Amino acid sequence: MADHVFLFGDGKADGGAAMKELLGGKGAGLAEMVRLGIPVPPGFTLSTAVCHHYYANGQSYPGSLDGEIRAALGEVERMVGARFGDPENPLLLSVRSGARVSMPGMMDTVLNLGLNDTTVRGLIARTGDRRFAFDSYRRFVQMYGDVVMGMKPEGKQDRDPFEALLEAKKEARGVHNDTDLSADDLAELVAEFKQEILGRLGRPFPEEPWEQLWGAVGAVFGSWENARAVTYRTMYNIPAAWGTAVTVQAMVFGNLGDDCATGVAFTRDPSTGERRFYGEFLVNAQGEDVVAGIRTPQAISRASRKEGEPPSLEELMPAPYADLVAVYQRLELHFRDMQDIEFTIQRGKLWMLQTRTGKRTARAMIRIAVEMVKEGMLTRDEAILRLDPNKLDELLHPMLDPSVEKRVIARGLPASPGAAVGKVVFHADEAEAMAAKEERVILVRVETSPEDIHGMKAAQGILTARGGMTSHAAVVARGMGKCCVAGCGALQVDYAQQRFTVSTQSGPVVVKRGDMITLDGGKGEVILGSVAMTSAALDDHFNELMTWVDAARRLKVRTNADTPADARTARRFGAEGIGLCRTEHMFFEPERILAVREMILADDTAGRRRALEKILPMQRGDFVEIFRAMAGLPVTIRLLDPPLHEFLPHTDGEIGAVAAELGVDLATVKRKNELLHEFNPMLGHRGCRLAITYPEIYEVQVRAIIEAACQLGREGIAVMPEIMIPIVGYPRELAIMRALTVRIADDVIAREHASLTYTVGTMIELPRACVAAAEIAEHADFFSFGTNDLTQTTLGISRDDAGRFLPAYVEQGIYPSDPFVAIDRDGVGAMMRLAVAGGRAQKGHLKIGICGEHGGEPSSVEFCHQLGLDYVSCSPFRVPIARLAAAQAALRDPGRT
Amino acid sequence: MADHVFLFGDGKADGGAAMKELLGGKGAGLAEMVRLGIPVPPGFTLSTAVCHHYYANGQSYPGSLDGEIRAALGEVERMVGARFGDPENPLLLSVRSGARVSMPGMMDTVLNLGLNDTTVRGLIARTGDRRFAFDSYRRFVQMYGDVVMGMKPEGKQDRDPFEALLEAKKEARGVHNDTDLSADDLAELVAEFKQEILGRLGRPFPEEPWEQLWGAVGAVFGSWENARAVTYRTMYNIPAAWGTAVTVQAMVFGNLGDDCATGVAFTRDPSTGERRFYGEFLVNAQGEDVVAGIRTPQAISRASRKEGEPPSLEELMPAPYADLVAVYQRLELHFRDMQDIEFTIQRGKLWMLQTRTGKRTARAMIRIAVEMVKEGMLTRDEAILRLDPNKLDELLHPMLDPSVEKRVIARGLPASPGAAVGKVVFHADEAEAMAAKEERVILVRVETSPEDIHGMKAAQGILTARGGMTSHAAVVARGMGKCCVAGCGALQVDYAQQRFTVSTQSGPVVVKRGDMITLDGGKGEVILGSVAMTSAALDDHFNELMTWVDAARRLKVRTNADTPADARTARRFGAEGIGLCRTEHMFFEPERILAVREMILADDTAGRRRALEKILPMQRGDFVEIFRAMAGLPVTIRLLDPPLHEFLPHTDGEIGAVAAELGVDLATVKRKNELLHEFNPMLGHRGCRLAITYPEIYEVQVRAIIEAACQLGREGIAVMPEIMIPIVGYPRELAIMRALTVRIADDVIAREHASLTYTVGTMIELPRACVAAAEIAEHADFFSFGTNDLTQTTLGISRDDAGRFLPAYVEQGIYPSDPFVAIDRDGVGAMMRLAVAGGRAQKGHLKIGICGEHGGEPSSVEFCHQLGLDYVSCSPFRVPIARLAAAQAALRDPGRT
Repeated sequence: MADHVFLFGDGKADGGAAMKELLGGKGAGLAEMVRLGIPVPPGFTLSTAVCHHYYANGQSYPGSLDGEIRAALGEVERMVGARFGDPENPLLLSVRSGARVSMPGMMDTVLNLGLNDTTVRGLIARTGDRRFAFDSYRRFVQMYGDVVMGMKPEGKQDRDPFEALLEAKKEARGVHNDTDLSADDLAELVAEFKQEILGRLGRPFPEEPWEQLWGAVGAVFGSWENARAVTYRTMYNIPAAWGTAVTVQAMVFGNLGDDCATGVAFTRDPSTGERRFYGEFLVNAQGEDVVAGIRTPQAISRASRKEGEPPSLEELMPAPYADLVAVYQRLELHFRDMQDIEFTIQRGKLWMLQTRTGKRTARAMIRIAVEMVKEGMLTRDEAILRLDPNKLDELLHPMLDPSVEKRVIARGLPASPGAAVGKVVFHADEAEAMAAKEERVILVRVETSPEDIHGMKAAQGILTARGGMTSHAAVVARGMGKCCVAGCGALQVDYAQQRFTVSTQSGPVVVKRGDMITLDGGKGEVILGSVAMTSAALDDHFNELMTWVDAARRLKVRTNADTPADARTARRFGAEGIGLCRTEHMFFEPERILAVREMILADDTAGRRRALEKILPMQRGDFVEIFRAMAGLPVTIRLLDPPLHEFLPHTDGEIGAVAAELGVDLATVKRKNELLHEFNPMLGHRGCRLAITYPEIYEVQVRAIIEAACQLGREGIAVMPEIMIPIVGYPRELAIMRALTVRIADDVIAREHASLTYTVGTMIELPRACVAAAEIAEHADFFSFGTNDLTQTTLGISRDDAGRFLPAYVEQGIYPSDPFVAIDRDGVGAMMRLAVAGGRAQKGHLKIGICGEHGGEPSSVEFCHQLGLDYVSCSPFRVPIARLAAAQAALRDPGRT
Repeated sequence: MADHVFLFGDGKADGGAAMKELLGGKGAGLAEMVRLGIPVPPGFTLSTAVCHHYYANGQSYPGSLDGEIRAALGEVERMVGARFGDPENPLLLSVRSGARVSMPGMMDTVLNLGLNDTTVRGLIARTGDRRFAFDSYRRFVQMYGDVVMGMKPEGKQDRDPFEALLEAKKEARGVHNDTDLSADDLAELVAEFKQEILGRLGRPFPEEPWEQLWGAVGAVFGSWENARAVTYRTMYNIPAAWGTAVTVQAMVFGNLGDDCATGVAFTRDPSTGERRFYGEFLVNAQGEDVVAGIRTPQAISRASRKEGEPPSLEELMPAPYADLVAVYQRLELHFRDMQDIEFTIQRGKLWMLQTRTGKRTARAMIRIAVEMVKEGMLTRDEAILRLDPNKLDELLHPMLDPSVEKRVIARGLPASPGAAVGKVVFHADEAEAMAAKEERVILVRVETSPEDIHGMKAAQGILTARGGMTSHAAVVARGMGKCCVAGCGALQVDYAQQRFTVSTQSGPVVVKRGDMITLDGGKGEVILGSVAMTSAALDDHFNELMTWVDAARRLKVRTNADTPADARTARRFGAEGIGLCRTEHMFFEPERILAVREMILADDTAGRRRALEKILPMQRGDFVEIFRAMAGLPVTIRLLDPPLHEFLPHTDGEIGAVAAELGVDLATVKRKNELLHEFNPMLGHRGCRLAITYPEIYEVQVRAIIEAACQLGREGIAVMPEIMIPIVGYPRELAIMRALTVRIADDVIAREHASLTYTVGTMIELPRACVAAAEIAEHADFFSFGTNDLTQTTLGISRDDAGRFLPAYVEQGIYPSDPFVAIDRDGVGAMMRLAVAGGRAQKGHLKIGICGEHGGEPSSVEFCHQLGLDYVSCSPFRVPIARLAAAQAALRDPGRT
């Protein structure tokens, strides 16, 4: 069978769980279940190798594929006892995508394939259920028309044309629900659907089952490159080269009567991580109905069913429920992780349709890992390695302040935890547009679909009127770590009027587009107005996990903090010092900016010194508080970095105000603005270049730092200042800056009779600094990689301007991922390697860290570990992420002892 | 004597010509002459080591220096038979600077040191010439007051206060010339000068000779860091670290009567290189008088004296003249180069005061080198190595079109050859300011002084009313390779009215500031208006030299040419192909820019293609002509590089015009402008990034290139197109661009049934490309270093914005020289080394060149040779320079066979 077609069924399978790369997650999971003896409808998987061939050869297939498929389908026919396209006893198929990692809803699926005007009669004869047969046929023509034939133009917000015909039919019959339509109505709809296809596309719906099958396979492979899938891959950093597999499987039917059902379940609670079987199902339905959120499903177990809700599966169908419990326990133990499973019960018999590692919230991720260690299922190292560091982000951000009074106007399902405040919008495009203007928005939809993904990404939170805990909105929001309240039935959404209405005890409340609301995803609450936030409470599972993490890592983790508040937050999150304290933000505060501007507008050194003297005491005050917050830990302070024009006003109004305040004339301020204008400020007069031309700026900053340190020293507080010089490219630049720093610092220390140790080091953020690192290290006590600027200069790309081509670059696989997010190891990483080698060749134990934003990104942290850096530094909220990533890097390090 | 004080005199010297680094050019030359038995007044040199100590230790001297100087001075007193400060028989001294290389007029000199109210009486007694004694005394007080005490504020355009007193005295006496003042007048002036010093500075002129000596020594060392010297060093790339020596020498007097003289001479003609003794002198004068250009001096030999001029030195003083001839011949043979000598004749006896290698024009440089090879004085290799490649520039630039009628309004001395056209300005500052606005200016001065150096640099040419061929203006202009007409006595310059007047046969002509004039430096002509230029004629000496040069070099030399005219010029200068043909300049031509803008304003691919189709035939036409001009030679064409916004109009008026022409509304053009605006265009959406997003742009360019090549192929003309992709950083970028190029090119070739070989390569201009060179080389037939952008990105410096700090960086020795002029070997060079190693590891014989502006800069060419590049490419006018530099690099290469 070569690498193309992998059969499974009847207790035997060509592949297994280890073959995800070739079979995709779905195919590998099905094969593994078959091997475990779990009931799975037979089928076969076309591997990702076929996908690669498809895209590498102008969307064509390997020559042998047709034969291989016919052989495999023959085996499936034998196992099921029905034949594909047989008028008497037709085998129906599902055709589904399956990438290496789950991409929910991103690619296309076709169910009930094999039906036509002939086989539908066979299906009626075999099931004795004409309505079921035409319902299946109707669904098939609709899905095939949308997915394979392209009747539903991708990306449009409006419903597809088949839905309009369905609505018209219901209106004509005076009914409300699809289920109220008769077999004849459905048969008419099939004919109308086909007519619509012919009319719109000029070609008929294909009656021939093999033509249907090839069409569906091509559509699924083709969907790997649709816009939704590309967006999703970009978002989750999934390489285009992975490709998707296609699984073709015999249909089983959950819609064949009231002894039938279909459902999805998690082996533990994906929201809290609690160890309980958790899921939803629908009686007499097909699988898509549950996920699409069209009917609100029922709870699976008696324990999780709430008062007044319809009966659980446990109560309705005890025997297949008992089978399901046995299966889930077997699967969790087998995979040693929480599983997300899909099943169908056909006339009382359980069939498993999928098992995969379940998506979960950060809180659940941690609780499951910690508890599985305690249950003996995992070692601590395994538990640490299994975690996704980026997900911790969700945990660390603020939640609603419980002490604040709030007006809850509706309750829905707590589909994804966290809190969100924003303006209401009703369309994904608008959410994206407003977010681009820095507006915080809440996306409100009746239900979400994959077309809404960009809007969900842009929104602070998502609110839907329909759908359950496993609806599209819920699953995607949890994956994004975004707050979501789903299935909030009280909501009456009116897209046309751009508003929603809820009935409350005090009467109806109308919320219009642009109104502010707050969501509490942990409680499922919809709150009118904006509610204040408070810091996240870190639970015991988190704290326990982090002690394991800290024991495992070698890299130190510091924080980038410019204010005492940030420093305190970071310390609470475990920061072991400050790796980057930027001083320019201190210059922007309203009461200081005037003095800064006076300094810039001064014509000579004396004028600059006078203005700087005004800034000195304020800046010294900042350092006192930051040092106090970091008592006993090192604090790296970067001297002024941005070009001076950043501090000047730019609009005519502001210029006038500044001129008036400073008592200079308008023309002077304008002229200075023009004089300081730069074509490429990124590559301009900034960093230590400022201090080569105006040394007094750094002199005053050094004085402020050392005076602050001396003051705390007198209070008995240990201070470890590390003075860092930016934008160094030449050894002599640092030599001059070091001499300046030492001269001023030693003078202050002598004058104050203090005993203080300080160090002087440099940012490494220019390629030239990397190649000259050995000579630069002569004058440096430490290096700190500024990977933001190093990426800009090494790649020759301005971060501010890259938006126009960066997406195309990621999409076309030129960048494996956005180089401003994860360190470009082959380029920027190679430069860093040169710098580490050079620096350590000069000084064997030179302290080296990183303070670019990459310092909090897990794959970059791993790279820093591999490079042998001493520490990473990142924003306060990313400190725990970096700690976990550092532990994972240490555990993966083949050289560890 | 350690390294501090080096004595010379009486046929013995502590040093010699090989010790320039320690003794400076002047000290080393004097010592060498003493060793050769040539008459030199005795003296001693304080070495550059003292200068280093002086600057490294807060302007103080080594402890032993005082003793060493007293010992040396004792020896000088013994040799001369006079004593320093002796009231009866005073020894007078000159104190002069002397750097390793000659820096004419840049540093300070003090003559006649040792005079005071007591010793002047001794001088009168010994010489019997009271007027001479007070003239010397007057000069001394003036020089000392200016140079040592700072009476003449540096950088001011106006005359020093002593000159005002001198003028007043002449007025009071009713005389015109200094020489008409009596001994009493001069004695009064000495008293008035001293009073002026006391009044202005509050401290007296020092009477004590030792105090005078230390003051003068300190002033000379201090002058190493004065603004003039710093400007000069920056201009000529002289390291600050070299320092200057100070030579203290017994005075001899050329102003002791009519049997006295002083002069300067060259052993060959410094303007043409002709082998003839050439110089000027003044009877009864001190050396400064000749150089200062206050009196117009006389010709030294009878042969060079013109009809009606005063007699030559040969005629006036045949005996010392014969001695001088013997000395110059001896010196030229000894140094094997043209010498620039200074001498004084004191009462009939010849004393040599200086010998150094003479500055010369490019034409003279070549003729002297070629003729010295023929005379057997040098080998060809020695001759090549001795040349300054940069000087060739002068030769290659256009000269006045001889066929054009021109109105010569005055004639002066042909002080520095070449031609210049520009607007008249009268002040150096204004020359600089206007040149900064891209205006061409001619600087007109009565005479120039070192304060004018920045204006001379900025001007196209220099015109002076006074001074000879060795005046400041003449010497500096020749050094700069700038056209100069000097000593044009007909000029009446009126600074106050900002105009000059000349009397011509048709009446007086007034030329005002801003009027256009033309200078012919080869003929000494001043021409009214702007005269057309024609290409330079290259003489036989040049052609012969270049055949030696081409035989010696390994590097090929190509040109950067965007037009057929440039290509033809470069080929005439010896270019062996085009290394960089930029296509964007072709887009700017008036009839095309509209189509280019239409392309940019298009909303989709189809719209862009429509506009590009209009550009295609024009661009194809360009390539046809360029290929034709370079028939048989390779032509590297770079596809579009700049960001698209560079092609859009920016002022409201232009925007309106474009909108009207294209029939789109104003708002659309403005919006597109805003949309395309970039914060850092250098790092923006440009180069191949344009073609990743808009492949149609490169597709059309490739089509134009290949269609042009096929067309010439049909004409039987050999074409070797090399298609070059800019701004590549990732291997996959080039892979995609290569696939695009090959697809389009092969399609054209097949369609036209042509047989054409083309190659596809890439610029290496980003640090990332250097570290990923091995992988990039997989897809490249050649590399070409774009060192302009590579310097910007490696150093993180925008060339457009560096002006604010670059001078400080060069001055403080952070940059050894401007990295945009000469390749920064330790930084950019290290990146290049990585790229060469990576590229050649992948493809052993990968063709590698350079097409940045460094490709025509001699030290960069040498570095490219050392790196093993295949070729350099530079602007047409620098092709001969690169050829010579490449030959020198090959000859200096220790590994050459």
